[in-house]
Amino acid sequence: MREKRIKTNLITSEDVRVRFNETDVLGVVWHGNYVKYFEDGREAFGREHNISYLDQKNNGFATPIIKLICDYKLPLYFGDIAKIETTYINTPAVKMIFQYKIINPKGKLVCQGETVQVFVDFNGNLQLKPPPFFEAWKLKKGLF
Amino acid sequence: MREKRIKTNLITSEDVRVRFNETDVLGVVWHGNYVKYFEDGREAFGREHNISYLDQKNNGFATPIIKLICDYKLPLYFGDIAKIETTYINTPAVKMIFQYKIINPKGKLVCQGETVQVFVDFNGNLQLKPPPFFEAWKLKKGLF
Amino acid sequence: MREKRIKTNLITSEDVRVRFNETDVLGVVWHGNYVKYFEDGREAFGREHNISYLDQKNNGFATPIIKLICDYKLPLYFGDIAKIETTYINTPAVKMIFQYKIINPKGKLVCQGETVQVFVDFNGNLQLKPPPFFEAWKLKKGLF
Amino acid sequence: MREKRIKTNLITSEDVRVRFNETDVLGVVWHGNYVKYFEDGREAFGREHNISYLDQKNNGFATPIIKLICDYKLPLYFGDIAKIETTYINTPAVKMIFQYKIINPKGKLVCQGETVQVFVDFNGNLQLKPPPFFEAWKLKKGLF
Repeated sequence: MREKRIKTNLITSEDVRVRFNETDVLGVVWHGNYVKYFEDGREAFGREHNISYLDQKNNGFATPIIKLICDYKLPLYFGDIAKIETTYINTPAVKMIFQYKIINPKGKLVCQGETVQVFVDFNGNLQLKPPPFFEAWKLKKGLF
Repeated sequence: MREKRIKTNLITSEDVRVRFNETDVLGVVWHGNYVKYFEDGREAFGREHNISYLDQKNNGFATPIIKLICDYKLPLYFGDIAKIETTYINTPAVKMIFQYKIINPKGKLVCQGETVQVFVDFNGNLQLKPPPFFEAWKLKKGLF
Repeated sequence: MREKRIKTNLITSEDVRVRFNETDVLGVVWHGNYVKYFEDGREAFGREHNISYLDQKNNGFATPIIKLICDYKLPLYFGDIAKIETTYINTPAVKMIFQYKIINPKGKLVCQGETVQVFVDFNGNLQLKPPPFFEAWKLKKGLF
Repeated sequence: MREKRIKTNLITSEDVRVRFNETDVLGVVWHGNYVKYFEDGREAFGREHNISYLDQKNNGFATPIIKLICDYKLPLYFGDIAKIETTYINTPAVKMIFQYKIINPKGKLVCQGETVQVFVDFNGNLQLKPPPFFEAWKLKKGLF
Protein backbone atom coordinates (compact mmCIF):
# COMPACT_ATOMS: atom_id res chain seq x y z
CA MET A 1 0.00 0.00 0.00
CA ARG A 2 1.30 3.38 -0.95
CA GLU A 3 1.25 6.16 1.62
CA LYS A 4 -0.79 9.32 1.03
CA ARG A 5 1.43 12.16 -0.11
CA ILE A 6 1.22 15.89 -0.87
CA LYS A 7 3.89 17.90 -2.68
CA THR A 8 4.93 20.92 -0.56
CA ASN A 9 6.50 24.22 -1.57
CA LEU A 10 9.58 23.38 0.52
CA ILE A 11 12.20 23.19 -2.22
CA THR A 12 15.95 23.57 -1.97
CA SER A 13 18.26 24.11 -4.91
CA GLU A 14 21.91 23.04 -4.80
CA ASP A 15 24.61 23.05 -7.46
CA VAL A 16 27.04 20.19 -7.87
CA ARG A 17 30.01 19.99 -10.21
CA VAL A 18 30.41 16.62 -11.92
CA ARG A 19 33.68 15.02 -10.86
CA PHE A 20 36.00 13.24 -13.29
CA ASN A 21 35.83 10.14 -11.12
CA GLU A 22 32.02 10.10 -11.34
CA THR A 23 32.06 9.44 -15.08
CA ASP A 24 32.38 6.01 -16.60
CA VAL A 25 33.96 4.61 -19.73
CA LEU A 26 31.02 5.93 -21.79
CA GLY A 27 32.06 9.48 -20.89
CA VAL A 28 28.99 10.25 -18.80
CA VAL A 29 28.11 10.13 -15.12
CA TRP A 30 27.75 6.51 -14.03
CA HIS A 31 24.10 5.97 -13.15
CA GLY A 32 24.81 4.95 -9.55
CA ASN A 33 26.45 8.29 -8.82
CA TYR A 34 23.12 10.12 -9.08
CA VAL A 35 22.36 8.62 -5.69
CA LYS A 36 25.19 10.80 -4.33
CA TYR A 37 23.63 13.87 -5.96
CA PHE A 38 20.27 13.04 -4.38
CA GLU A 39 22.06 12.88 -1.02
CA ASP A 40 23.75 16.22 -1.74
CA GLY A 41 20.31 17.67 -2.47
CA ARG A 42 18.71 16.13 0.61
CA GLU A 43 21.47 17.39 2.87
CA ALA A 44 21.28 20.88 1.34
CA PHE A 45 17.55 20.79 2.09
CA GLY A 46 18.32 19.59 5.60
CA ARG A 47 20.77 22.41 6.26
CA GLU A 48 18.34 25.04 4.97
CA HIS A 49 15.38 23.63 6.90
CA ASN A 50 17.11 22.29 10.04
CA ILE A 51 16.30 18.66 9.41
CA SER A 52 19.70 17.40 8.23
CA TYR A 53 21.39 14.14 9.20
CA LEU A 54 23.15 15.94 12.06
CA ASP A 55 19.88 17.51 13.29
CA GLN A 56 18.32 14.05 13.32
CA LYS A 57 21.32 12.56 15.08
CA ASN A 58 21.33 15.29 17.74
CA ASN A 59 17.74 14.31 18.46
CA GLY A 60 18.57 10.64 18.80
CA PHE A 61 17.45 9.30 15.46
CA ALA A 62 18.68 8.14 12.09
CA THR A 63 16.57 7.94 8.95
CA PRO A 64 17.64 5.03 6.74
CA ILE A 65 16.48 4.98 3.15
CA ILE A 66 13.92 2.25 2.49
CA LYS A 67 13.09 3.13 -1.11
CA LEU A 68 14.96 4.71 -3.98
CA ILE A 69 13.71 5.48 -7.48
CA CYS A 70 15.66 7.12 -10.32
CA ASP A 71 14.41 7.92 -13.81
CA TYR A 72 17.21 8.81 -16.18
CA LYS A 73 16.39 11.12 -19.08
CA LEU A 74 19.67 12.52 -20.40
CA PRO A 75 23.37 12.07 -19.67
CA LEU A 76 25.51 14.40 -17.57
CA TYR A 77 29.10 15.07 -18.60
CA PHE A 78 32.36 15.71 -16.77
CA GLY A 79 32.63 19.38 -15.87
CA ASP A 80 28.89 20.02 -16.01
CA ILE A 81 27.51 22.02 -13.12
CA ALA A 82 24.18 20.39 -12.41
CA LYS A 83 21.38 21.82 -10.31
CA ILE A 84 19.64 19.53 -7.83
CA GLU A 85 16.12 20.54 -6.82
CA THR A 86 14.93 18.74 -3.71
CA THR A 87 11.26 18.89 -2.75
CA TYR A 88 9.74 17.71 0.51
CA ILE A 89 6.67 15.52 0.04
CA ASN A 90 4.35 15.55 3.01
CA THR A 91 2.72 12.36 4.25
CA PRO A 92 0.86 11.36 7.42
CA ALA A 93 2.98 8.19 7.48
CA VAL A 94 6.00 8.24 9.83
CA LYS A 95 8.33 8.79 6.92
CA MET A 96 10.33 11.45 5.15
CA ILE A 97 9.83 11.57 1.40
CA PHE A 98 11.92 13.66 -0.97
CA GLN A 99 11.67 14.12 -4.71
CA TYR A 100 14.63 15.24 -6.78
CA LYS A 101 15.14 16.87 -10.13
CA ILE A 102 18.60 17.15 -11.63
CA ILE A 103 18.95 19.84 -14.26
CA ASN A 104 21.90 20.16 -16.67
CA PRO A 105 23.64 23.46 -17.60
CA LYS A 106 21.24 23.89 -20.56
CA GLY A 107 18.24 23.76 -18.24
CA LYS A 108 17.14 20.27 -19.30
CA LEU A 109 15.92 17.64 -16.86
CA VAL A 110 18.48 14.84 -16.80
CA CYS A 111 17.13 12.76 -13.94
CA GLN A 112 14.29 12.71 -11.48
CA GLY A 113 13.88 10.51 -8.48
CA GLU A 114 12.55 9.87 -5.02
CA THR A 115 13.70 8.55 -1.68
CA VAL A 116 11.64 7.36 1.27
CA GLN A 117 13.14 7.29 4.77
CA VAL A 118 11.94 5.89 8.08
CA PHE A 119 12.98 6.79 11.61
CA VAL A 120 15.03 4.46 13.82
CA ASP A 121 16.50 5.17 17.24
CA PHE A 122 20.14 4.43 18.06
CA ASN A 123 19.21 0.84 18.94
CA GLY A 124 17.82 0.40 15.44
CA ASN A 125 14.17 0.31 16.53
CA LEU A 126 11.75 1.40 13.83
CA GLN A 127 9.56 4.28 15.05
CA LEU A 128 5.85 3.75 14.49
CA LYS A 129 4.98 7.16 15.93
CA PRO A 130 6.69 10.35 14.76
CA PRO A 131 9.61 11.40 17.02
CA PRO A 132 8.74 14.62 18.92
CA PHE A 133 11.45 16.66 17.17
CA PHE A 134 9.98 15.65 13.82
CA GLU A 135 6.43 16.55 14.89
CA ALA A 136 7.71 19.91 16.11
CA TRP A 137 9.51 20.45 12.80
CA LYS A 138 6.40 19.67 10.76
CA LEU A 139 4.32 21.96 12.94
CA LYS A 140 6.82 24.76 12.48
CA LYS A 141 6.75 24.22 8.73
CA GLY A 142 2.95 24.19 8.66
CA LEU A 143 2.85 20.59 7.46
CA PHE A 144 -0.11 19.28 9.47
CA MET B 1 2.64 3.45 -19.80
CA ARG B 2 4.38 0.46 -18.37
CA GLU B 3 5.81 -2.16 -20.72
CA LYS B 4 4.42 -5.72 -20.67
CA ARG B 5 6.76 -8.03 -18.80
CA ILE B 6 7.17 -11.73 -18.03
CA LYS B 7 9.57 -13.15 -15.42
CA THR B 8 11.84 -15.77 -17.01
CA ASN B 9 13.73 -18.67 -15.46
CA LEU B 10 17.03 -17.09 -16.51
CA ILE B 11 18.55 -16.41 -13.11
CA THR B 12 22.19 -15.94 -12.18
CA SER B 13 23.54 -16.04 -8.66
CA GLU B 14 26.72 -14.19 -7.68
CA ASP B 15 28.41 -13.69 -4.31
CA VAL B 16 29.87 -10.37 -3.28
CA ARG B 17 31.87 -9.60 -0.15
CA VAL B 18 30.95 -6.28 1.48
CA ARG B 19 33.94 -3.94 1.41
CA PHE B 20 34.93 -1.80 4.38
CA ASN B 21 34.76 1.28 2.15
CA GLU B 22 31.16 0.46 1.19
CA THR B 23 29.90 0.96 4.73
CA ASP B 24 28.95 4.32 6.18
CA VAL B 25 29.14 5.92 9.59
CA LEU B 26 26.07 3.90 10.67
CA GLY B 27 28.11 0.71 10.26
CA VAL B 28 26.08 -0.65 7.36
CA VAL B 29 26.37 -0.60 3.60
CA TRP B 30 25.57 2.90 2.32
CA HIS B 31 22.34 2.64 0.34
CA GLY B 32 23.87 3.92 -2.90
CA ASN B 33 26.36 1.06 -2.97
CA TYR B 34 23.62 -1.49 -3.68
CA VAL B 35 23.62 -0.07 -7.20
CA LYS B 36 27.14 -1.51 -7.54
CA TYR B 37 25.89 -4.89 -6.37
CA PHE B 38 23.09 -4.79 -8.93
CA GLU B 39 25.72 -4.12 -11.57
CA ASP B 40 27.81 -7.02 -10.26
CA GLY B 41 24.73 -9.24 -10.57
CA ARG B 42 23.85 -7.98 -14.04
CA GLU B 43 27.39 -8.51 -15.31
CA ALA B 44 27.53 -12.01 -13.77
CA PHE B 45 24.29 -12.73 -15.65
CA GLY B 46 25.81 -11.26 -18.80
CA ARG B 47 28.92 -13.43 -18.57
CA GLU B 48 26.87 -16.58 -18.01
CA HIS B 49 24.40 -15.80 -20.78
CA ASN B 50 26.66 -14.00 -23.30
CA ILE B 51 24.90 -10.65 -23.08
CA SER B 52 27.40 -8.72 -20.96
CA TYR B 53 28.53 -5.12 -21.47
CA LEU B 54 31.44 -6.37 -23.60
CA ASP B 55 29.14 -8.60 -25.71
CA GLN B 56 26.93 -5.57 -26.34
CA LYS B 57 29.92 -3.38 -27.15
CA ASN B 58 31.36 -5.95 -29.57
CA ASN B 59 28.03 -5.77 -31.40
CA GLY B 60 28.09 -1.99 -31.60
CA PHE B 61 25.73 -1.05 -28.81
CA ALA B 62 25.58 0.22 -25.27
CA THR B 63 22.60 -0.17 -22.94
CA PRO B 64 22.26 2.80 -20.60
CA ILE B 65 20.07 2.47 -17.54
CA ILE B 66 16.89 4.53 -17.79
CA LYS B 67 15.22 3.36 -14.59
CA LEU B 68 16.42 2.13 -11.22
CA ILE B 69 14.36 0.98 -8.26
CA CYS B 70 15.66 -0.27 -4.90
CA ASP B 71 13.61 -1.47 -1.94
CA TYR B 72 15.66 -1.79 1.22
CA LYS B 73 14.53 -4.35 3.81
CA LEU B 74 17.48 -5.01 6.11
CA PRO B 75 21.04 -3.71 6.53
CA LEU B 76 24.18 -5.43 5.27
CA TYR B 77 27.36 -5.30 7.37
CA PHE B 78 31.07 -5.12 6.68
CA GLY B 79 32.42 -8.60 6.02
CA ASP B 80 29.06 -10.09 5.02
CA ILE B 81 29.12 -12.23 1.92
CA ALA B 82 25.88 -11.36 0.17
CA LYS B 83 24.25 -13.33 -2.63
CA ILE B 84 22.89 -11.38 -5.61
CA GLU B 85 20.18 -13.13 -7.62
CA THR B 86 19.62 -11.52 -11.01
CA THR B 87 16.55 -12.47 -13.05
CA TYR B 88 15.90 -11.54 -16.65
CA ILE B 89 12.42 -10.10 -17.23
CA ASN B 90 11.19 -10.54 -20.77
CA THR B 91 9.35 -7.75 -22.56
CA PRO B 92 8.35 -7.08 -26.18
CA ALA B 93 9.65 -3.52 -25.69
CA VAL B 94 13.18 -2.79 -26.99
CA LYS B 95 14.55 -2.93 -23.48
CA MET B 96 16.46 -5.13 -21.09
CA ILE B 97 14.86 -5.50 -17.68
CA PHE B 98 16.54 -7.16 -14.72
CA GLN B 99 15.25 -7.79 -11.22
CA TYR B 100 17.60 -8.30 -8.30
CA LYS B 101 17.42 -9.89 -4.89
CA ILE B 102 20.23 -9.43 -2.40
CA ILE B 103 20.35 -12.09 0.32
CA ASN B 104 22.41 -11.82 3.51
CA PRO B 105 24.49 -14.67 5.05
CA LYS B 106 21.47 -15.75 7.15
CA GLY B 107 19.37 -16.20 4.00
CA LYS B 108 17.24 -13.09 4.57
CA LEU B 109 16.27 -10.71 1.77
CA VAL B 110 18.02 -7.39 2.40
CA CYS B 111 17.18 -5.57 -0.81
CA GLN B 112 15.29 -6.07 -4.02
CA GLY B 113 15.32 -3.92 -7.08
CA GLU B 114 15.02 -3.48 -10.79
CA THR B 115 16.81 -1.81 -13.66
CA VAL B 116 15.55 -1.00 -17.15
CA GLN B 117 18.00 -0.47 -20.02
CA VAL B 118 17.58 0.75 -23.59
CA PHE B 119 19.84 0.25 -26.60
CA VAL B 120 21.89 3.04 -28.15
CA ASP B 121 24.45 2.81 -30.93
CA PHE B 122 27.90 4.39 -30.61
CA ASN B 123 26.51 7.71 -31.86
CA GLY B 124 24.05 7.69 -28.99
CA ASN B 125 20.97 7.01 -31.15
CA LEU B 126 18.17 5.29 -29.27
CA GLN B 127 17.16 2.06 -31.02
CA LEU B 128 13.43 1.72 -31.64
CA LYS B 129 13.84 -1.76 -33.15
CA PRO B 130 15.80 -4.53 -31.40
CA PRO B 131 19.40 -4.81 -32.64
CA PRO B 132 19.92 -8.08 -34.59
CA PHE B 133 22.37 -9.51 -32.02
CA PHE B 134 19.75 -9.00 -29.32
CA GLU B 135 16.99 -10.61 -31.39
CA ALA B 136 19.31 -13.57 -32.05
CA TRP B 137 20.08 -13.81 -28.34
CA LYS B 138 16.39 -13.81 -27.37
CA LEU B 139 15.65 -16.44 -30.00
CA LYS B 140 18.45 -18.64 -28.69
CA LYS B 141 17.10 -18.25 -25.16
CA GLY B 142 13.56 -19.09 -26.28
CA LEU B 143 12.30 -15.64 -25.28
CA PHE B 144 9.85 -14.96 -28.11
CA MET C 1 65.93 8.69 -9.83
CA ARG C 2 63.85 11.55 -8.60
CA GLU C 3 63.17 14.45 -10.91
CA LYS C 4 64.38 17.94 -10.03
CA ARG C 5 61.57 20.05 -8.65
CA ILE C 6 60.86 23.62 -7.56
CA LYS C 7 57.79 24.74 -5.61
CA THR C 8 56.02 27.60 -7.45
CA ASN C 9 53.72 30.31 -6.19
CA LEU C 10 50.90 28.94 -8.36
CA ILE C 11 48.46 27.87 -5.66
CA THR C 12 44.71 27.34 -5.92
CA SER C 13 42.41 27.02 -2.97
CA GLU C 14 39.12 25.10 -3.22
CA ASP C 15 36.53 24.21 -0.60
CA VAL C 16 34.88 20.81 -0.47
CA ARG C 17 32.08 19.69 1.81
CA VAL C 18 32.53 16.18 3.20
CA ARG C 19 29.73 13.94 1.96
CA PHE C 20 27.96 11.44 4.20
CA ASN C 21 28.85 8.67 1.74
CA GLU C 22 32.55 9.54 2.01
CA THR C 23 32.72 8.56 5.67
CA ASP C 24 33.27 5.02 6.89
CA VAL C 25 32.12 3.00 9.85
CA LEU C 26 34.67 4.81 12.05
CA GLY C 27 32.78 8.06 11.45
CA VAL C 28 35.54 9.75 9.48
CA VAL C 29 36.39 10.19 5.82
CA TRP C 30 37.60 6.87 4.40
CA HIS C 31 41.28 7.32 3.52
CA GLY C 32 40.78 6.49 -0.16
CA ASN C 33 38.38 9.39 -0.60
CA TYR C 34 41.15 11.94 -0.14
CA VAL C 35 42.22 10.99 -3.65
CA LYS C 36 38.93 12.54 -4.83
CA TYR C 37 39.71 15.72 -2.91
CA PHE C 38 43.15 15.88 -4.53
CA GLU C 39 41.40 15.59 -7.89
CA ASP C 40 38.96 18.36 -6.91
CA GLY C 41 41.95 20.53 -6.01
CA ARG C 42 43.85 19.71 -9.19
CA GLU C 43 40.82 20.46 -11.37
CA ALA C 44 40.17 23.74 -9.52
CA PHE C 45 43.79 24.63 -10.24
CA GLY C 46 43.30 23.59 -13.87
CA ARG C 47 40.22 25.78 -14.28
CA GLU C 48 41.96 28.79 -12.75
CA HIS C 49 45.15 28.34 -14.75
CA ASN C 50 43.76 26.89 -18.02
CA ILE C 51 45.45 23.53 -17.71
CA SER C 52 42.47 21.38 -16.70
CA TYR C 53 41.62 17.91 -17.97
CA LEU C 54 39.44 19.47 -20.67
CA ASP C 55 42.21 21.90 -21.72
CA GLN C 56 44.57 18.95 -22.06
CA LYS C 57 42.00 16.94 -23.97
CA ASN C 58 41.28 19.82 -26.36
CA ASN C 59 44.99 19.81 -27.13
CA GLY C 60 45.09 16.09 -27.81
CA PHE C 61 46.54 14.77 -24.58
CA ALA C 62 45.68 13.05 -21.35
CA THR C 63 47.81 13.10 -18.23
CA PRO C 64 47.50 9.84 -16.30
CA ILE C 65 48.69 9.73 -12.72
CA ILE C 66 51.86 7.67 -12.27
CA LYS C 67 52.49 8.39 -8.61
CA LEU C 68 50.31 9.19 -5.62
CA ILE C 69 51.39 9.90 -2.05
CA CYS C 70 49.14 10.75 0.89
CA ASP C 71 50.19 11.52 4.45
CA TYR C 72 47.29 11.47 6.88
CA LYS C 73 47.56 13.63 9.98
CA LEU C 74 44.04 14.06 11.39
CA PRO C 75 40.55 12.79 10.58
CA LEU C 76 37.89 14.72 8.66
CA TYR C 77 34.24 14.38 9.71
CA PHE C 78 30.90 14.37 7.93
CA GLY C 79 29.75 17.94 7.35
CA ASP C 80 33.22 19.45 7.59
CA ILE C 81 34.04 21.98 4.92
CA ALA C 82 37.66 21.29 4.10
CA LYS C 83 40.00 23.54 2.17
CA ILE C 84 42.22 21.99 -0.49
CA GLU C 85 45.37 23.92 -1.37
CA THR C 86 46.93 22.77 -4.62
CA THR C 87 50.43 23.90 -5.52
CA TYR C 88 52.15 23.43 -8.86
CA ILE C 89 55.67 22.02 -8.56
CA ASN C 90 57.88 22.87 -11.49
CA THR C 91 60.22 20.33 -13.00
CA PRO C 92 62.25 20.11 -16.22
CA ALA C 93 60.94 16.53 -16.59
CA VAL C 94 57.96 16.05 -18.97
CA LYS C 95 55.62 15.75 -16.03
CA MET C 96 53.04 17.67 -14.05
CA ILE C 97 53.57 17.56 -10.31
CA PHE C 98 51.05 18.86 -7.78
CA GLN C 99 51.22 19.01 -4.02
CA TYR C 100 48.11 19.17 -1.88
CA LYS C 101 47.25 20.32 1.61
CA ILE C 102 43.85 19.59 3.09
CA ILE C 103 42.88 21.88 5.96
CA ASN C 104 39.97 21.25 8.35
CA PRO C 105 37.48 23.91 9.55
CA LYS C 106 39.74 24.65 12.56
CA GLY C 107 42.64 25.46 10.28
CA LYS C 108 44.57 22.27 11.03
CA LEU C 109 46.37 20.26 8.37
CA VAL C 110 44.59 16.91 8.03
CA CYS C 111 46.37 15.50 5.01
CA GLN C 112 49.11 16.37 2.57
CA GLY C 113 50.01 14.64 -0.61
CA GLU C 114 51.41 14.66 -4.08
CA THR C 115 50.58 13.41 -7.55
CA VAL C 116 52.82 13.04 -10.58
CA GLN C 117 51.35 12.94 -14.09
CA VAL C 118 52.82 12.17 -17.50
CA PHE C 119 51.53 13.09 -20.94
CA VAL C 120 50.10 10.54 -23.37
CA ASP C 121 48.46 11.18 -26.73
CA PHE C 122 45.09 9.63 -27.65
CA ASN C 123 46.87 6.48 -28.84
CA GLY C 124 48.35 6.10 -25.38
CA ASN C 125 51.92 7.00 -26.42
CA LEU C 126 54.01 8.42 -23.62
CA GLN C 127 55.43 11.81 -24.57
CA LEU C 128 59.15 12.18 -24.01
CA LYS C 129 59.14 15.81 -25.13
CA PRO C 130 56.72 18.38 -23.69
CA PRO C 131 53.62 18.87 -25.89
CA PRO C 132 53.64 22.38 -27.48
CA PHE C 133 50.52 23.52 -25.57
CA PHE C 134 52.24 22.61 -22.31
CA GLU C 135 55.44 24.42 -23.25
CA ALA C 136 53.36 27.48 -24.18
CA TRP C 137 51.53 27.24 -20.86
CA LYS C 138 54.76 27.07 -18.87
CA LEU C 139 56.19 30.00 -20.80
CA LYS C 140 53.08 32.05 -20.11
CA LYS C 141 53.33 31.19 -16.41
CA GLY C 142 57.03 32.09 -16.32
CA LEU C 143 58.02 28.55 -15.44
CA PHE C 144 61.21 28.23 -17.51
CA MET D 1 62.65 9.56 10.17
CA ARG D 2 61.74 6.35 8.45
CA GLU D 3 61.07 3.26 10.52
CA LYS D 4 63.27 0.15 10.16
CA ARG D 5 61.55 -2.47 8.05
CA ILE D 6 62.04 -6.08 6.93
CA LYS D 7 60.03 -7.78 4.17
CA THR D 8 58.51 -11.04 5.49
CA ASN D 9 57.37 -14.15 3.67
CA LEU D 10 53.80 -13.53 4.83
CA ILE D 11 52.12 -12.94 1.48
CA THR D 12 48.45 -13.28 0.56
CA SER D 13 47.13 -13.37 -2.98
CA GLU D 14 43.59 -12.26 -3.82
CA ASP D 15 41.79 -11.89 -7.13
CA VAL D 16 39.55 -8.93 -7.87
CA ARG D 17 37.39 -8.40 -10.94
CA VAL D 18 37.44 -4.82 -12.24
CA ARG D 19 33.97 -3.32 -12.01
CA PHE D 20 32.46 -1.20 -14.76
CA ASN D 21 31.90 1.60 -12.26
CA GLU D 22 35.60 1.60 -11.34
CA THR D 23 36.66 2.72 -14.81
CA ASP D 24 36.75 6.32 -15.94
CA VAL D 25 36.14 8.13 -19.19
CA LEU D 26 39.59 7.03 -20.42
CA GLY D 27 38.37 3.42 -20.31
CA VAL D 28 40.72 2.34 -17.53
CA VAL D 29 40.47 1.96 -13.77
CA TRP D 30 40.41 5.40 -12.16
CA HIS D 31 43.65 5.78 -10.18
CA GLY D 32 41.87 6.34 -6.87
CA ASN D 33 40.16 2.95 -7.08
CA TYR D 34 43.44 1.12 -6.58
CA VAL D 35 43.15 2.16 -2.94
CA LYS D 36 40.10 -0.13 -2.78
CA TYR D 37 42.11 -2.99 -4.25
CA PHE D 38 44.83 -2.43 -1.66
CA GLU D 39 42.14 -2.66 1.01
CA ASP D 40 40.81 -5.86 -0.59
CA GLY D 41 44.33 -7.28 -0.45
CA ARG D 42 44.92 -6.16 3.13
CA GLU D 43 41.63 -7.65 4.31
CA ALA D 44 42.33 -10.94 2.45
CA PHE D 45 45.67 -11.01 4.28
CA GLY D 46 43.87 -10.24 7.54
CA ARG D 47 41.39 -13.08 7.09
CA GLU D 48 44.16 -15.57 6.26
CA HIS D 49 46.38 -14.47 9.13
CA ASN D 50 43.78 -13.52 11.75
CA ILE D 51 44.67 -9.83 11.87
CA SER D 52 41.74 -8.38 9.92
CA TYR D 53 39.77 -5.23 10.73
CA LEU D 54 37.28 -7.34 12.70
CA ASP D 55 40.07 -9.13 14.63
CA GLN D 56 41.49 -5.73 15.57
CA LYS D 57 38.06 -4.41 16.53
CA ASN D 58 37.33 -7.46 18.68
CA ASN D 59 40.52 -6.65 20.55
CA GLY D 60 39.56 -3.03 21.09
CA PHE D 61 41.59 -1.30 18.43
CA ALA D 62 41.38 0.29 15.02
CA THR D 63 44.33 0.85 12.71
CA PRO D 64 43.90 4.02 10.66
CA ILE D 65 46.09 4.52 7.61
CA ILE D 66 48.67 7.25 8.09
CA LYS D 67 50.54 6.84 4.81
CA LEU D 68 49.62 5.68 1.33
CA ILE D 69 51.87 5.34 -1.71
CA CYS D 70 50.89 4.12 -5.17
CA ASP D 71 53.13 3.74 -8.21
CA TYR D 72 51.18 3.22 -11.41
CA LYS D 73 52.87 1.28 -14.21
CA LEU D 74 50.13 0.12 -16.59
CA PRO D 75 46.37 0.54 -16.93
CA LEU D 76 43.75 -2.01 -15.86
CA TYR D 77 40.62 -2.46 -17.99
CA PHE D 78 36.99 -3.26 -17.31
CA GLY D 79 36.54 -7.01 -16.99
CA ASP D 80 40.17 -7.71 -16.09
CA ILE D 81 40.67 -10.08 -13.21
CA ALA D 82 43.62 -8.62 -11.35
CA LYS D 83 45.71 -10.36 -8.72
CA ILE D 84 46.60 -8.45 -5.57
CA GLU D 85 49.67 -9.65 -3.69
CA THR D 86 49.86 -8.28 -0.18
CA THR D 87 53.08 -8.62 1.80
CA TYR D 88 53.55 -7.90 5.49
CA ILE D 89 56.56 -5.72 6.23
CA ASN D 90 57.90 -6.16 9.73
CA THR D 91 59.04 -3.20 11.80
CA PRO D 92 59.87 -2.65 15.46
CA ALA D 93 57.74 0.53 15.28
CA VAL D 94 54.17 0.25 16.63
CA LYS D 95 52.81 0.10 13.09
CA MET D 96 51.48 -2.27 10.50
CA ILE D 97 53.08 -1.91 7.08
CA PHE D 98 51.82 -3.65 3.96
CA GLN D 99 53.18 -3.62 0.44
CA TYR D 100 50.99 -4.41 -2.55
CA LYS D 101 51.52 -5.60 -6.08
CA ILE D 102 48.66 -5.60 -8.55
CA ILE D 103 49.16 -7.95 -11.50
CA ASN D 104 47.07 -7.90 -14.68
CA PRO D 105 45.72 -11.01 -16.50
CA LYS D 106 48.90 -11.12 -18.65
CA GLY D 107 51.06 -11.33 -15.55
CA LYS D 108 52.36 -7.77 -15.80
CA LEU D 109 52.77 -5.49 -12.77
CA VAL D 110 50.25 -2.65 -13.12
CA CYS D 111 50.67 -0.98 -9.75
CA GLN D 112 52.65 -1.30 -6.58
CA GLY D 113 52.11 0.48 -3.33
CA GLU D 114 52.35 0.64 0.41
CA THR D 115 50.24 1.55 3.40
CA VAL D 116 51.30 2.31 6.97
CA GLN D 117 48.83 1.95 9.84
CA VAL D 118 48.98 2.90 13.50
CA PHE D 119 46.96 1.59 16.43
CA VAL D 120 44.31 3.64 18.20
CA ASP D 121 41.90 2.55 20.92
CA PHE D 122 38.17 3.24 20.72
CA ASN D 123 38.74 6.67 22.26
CA GLY D 124 41.08 7.53 19.43
CA ASN D 125 44.25 7.40 21.54
CA LEU D 126 47.37 6.62 19.56
CA GLN D 127 49.16 3.57 21.02
CA LEU D 128 52.86 4.10 21.65
CA LYS D 129 53.32 0.51 22.84
CA PRO D 130 52.09 -2.47 20.82
CA PRO D 131 48.68 -3.75 21.96
CA PRO D 132 49.00 -7.21 23.61
CA PHE D 133 46.94 -8.95 20.89
CA PHE D 134 49.32 -7.57 18.28
CA GLU D 135 52.41 -8.64 20.21
CA ALA D 136 50.89 -12.11 20.59
CA TRP D 137 50.17 -12.19 16.86
CA LYS D 138 53.73 -11.22 15.95
CA LEU D 139 55.12 -13.81 18.33
CA LYS D 140 52.93 -16.50 16.79
CA LYS D 141 54.08 -15.46 13.33
CA GLY D 142 57.74 -15.51 14.38
CA LEU D 143 58.13 -11.80 13.74
CA PHE D 144 60.37 -10.83 16.66
